[in-house]
Amino acid sequence: MNFLEERIVKDGVVKEGNVLKVDSFLNHQMDIKLLDQMGAEFKRRFEGKPVNKILTIEASGIGIACVAAQHFDVPVVFAKKSQSINLDGDMYVAEVESFTHKCKNHVIVAQKFLTPDDHVLIIDDFLANGCALQGLIQIVQSSGATVEGIGIAIEKGFQSGGRIIRNLGFQLESLAIVDGMDAATGEIQFRNQEKDSRSASVAGNAELCRSCTLD
Amino acid sequence: MNFLEERIVKDGVVKEGNVLKVDSFLNHQMDIKLLDQMGAEFKRRFEGKPVNKILTIEASGIGIACVAAQHFDVPVVFAKKSQSINLDGDMYVAEVESFTHKCKNHVIVAQKFLTPDDHVLIIDDFLANGCALQGLIQIVQSSGATVEGIGIAIEKGFQSGGRIIRNLGFQLESLAIVDGMDAATGEIQFRNQEKDSRSASVAGNAELCRSCTLD
Repeated sequence: MNFLEERIVKDGVVKEGNVLKVDSFLNHQMDIKLLDQMGAEFKRRFEGKPVNKILTIEASGIGIACVAAQHFDVPVVFAKKSQSINLDGDMYVAEVESFTHKCKNHVIVAQKFLTPDDHVLIIDDFLANGCALQGLIQIVQSSGATVEGIGIAIEKGFQSGGRIIRNLGFQLESLAIVDGMDAATGEIQFRNQEKDSRSASVAGNAELCRSCTLD
Repeated sequence: MNFLEERIVKDGVVKEGNVLKVDSFLNHQMDIKLLDQMGAEFKRRFEGKPVNKILTIEASGIGIACVAAQHFDVPVVFAKKSQSINLDGDMYVAEVESFTHKCKNHVIVAQKFLTPDDHVLIIDDFLANGCALQGLIQIVQSSGATVEGIGIAIEKGFQSGGRIIRNLGFQLESLAIVDGMDAATGEIQFRNQEKDSRSASVAGNAELCRSCTLD
């Protein structure tokens, strides 16, 4: 197990409905030293990529992205989520469907902060069905910028988001991939990424996102 | 002028209605080196305070708080904003009125992340009428924790939030206090904090927040 998997086992809480609570160290209270370790690991995994900007989405991606950005020495842009669009200047807008909240959300980035010269690393805390992430990718591509990679803290490997993104050819690096959880025992099963990452990347077919969660 | 005031003059945009846009370096795109300078300055201004936790509020406070937290070597907790309350476990909730959005918002922190043993530094990007900040203070006090201080990036000195908070006896440190702006000329007038901080802290009477903005 790596440092993040160890921390998930120590302080994560498995709840009914495939919910993994990591609010004591990742997305309500944040352990800044852990975030710094994660930033260093993202830097290692994306070594050699000409990243000049990190893109994330409010709210819980922001802390991870800002600490990681120190390792890349680049600015961070965070996309805003809004049910309504209040256009103030030129914006890139992607519509994503929230399965959890039974509504559509808009992911919004001001056009001036993404240009064809940008080489973007997308960072977020969770990846499940991946619709928020698809919205971010759509926005980067609309701007003419390049997605150099995607760094995720925790991927729910039993949901389709990660497979779809890898099938589309992106370098997606999730520091922990949860392949199964048991709320009764609290047990968490992680994917062995050393061994399985190559085979996982070609498994399954590309598929469209039908029922999506804005993670 | 200090480093933040210089940056505001260089890249901030004054708009009609006393709006100061700093979205190119502070609250949409974030200059991480600037955030690091701000963190170092907060550490200097709160030197000797036994801070063991930083509290902020989503979304734009999170980046500033996480980078500052590295200077204090403490975890960050961010309060959530919600119009509806979806209680999941025991929460501290403060109701704050949003003048901008013509509705009431709730500021929410899980009770387990604030205890009477905590010595809290509150950090946020903007202070205007200060209702969001008052909600955060209320939550810290509900928990029995101590507010050791409040660090703000930009205070609108011509609105009442800062005066109210200082009148209540809190150590409020704003890295830049804007006393006036002119949308026609783009001119920004900063308070000279070296000279005026003592007199400003006793000016005016304590007053309740009547029309508040959730900054």
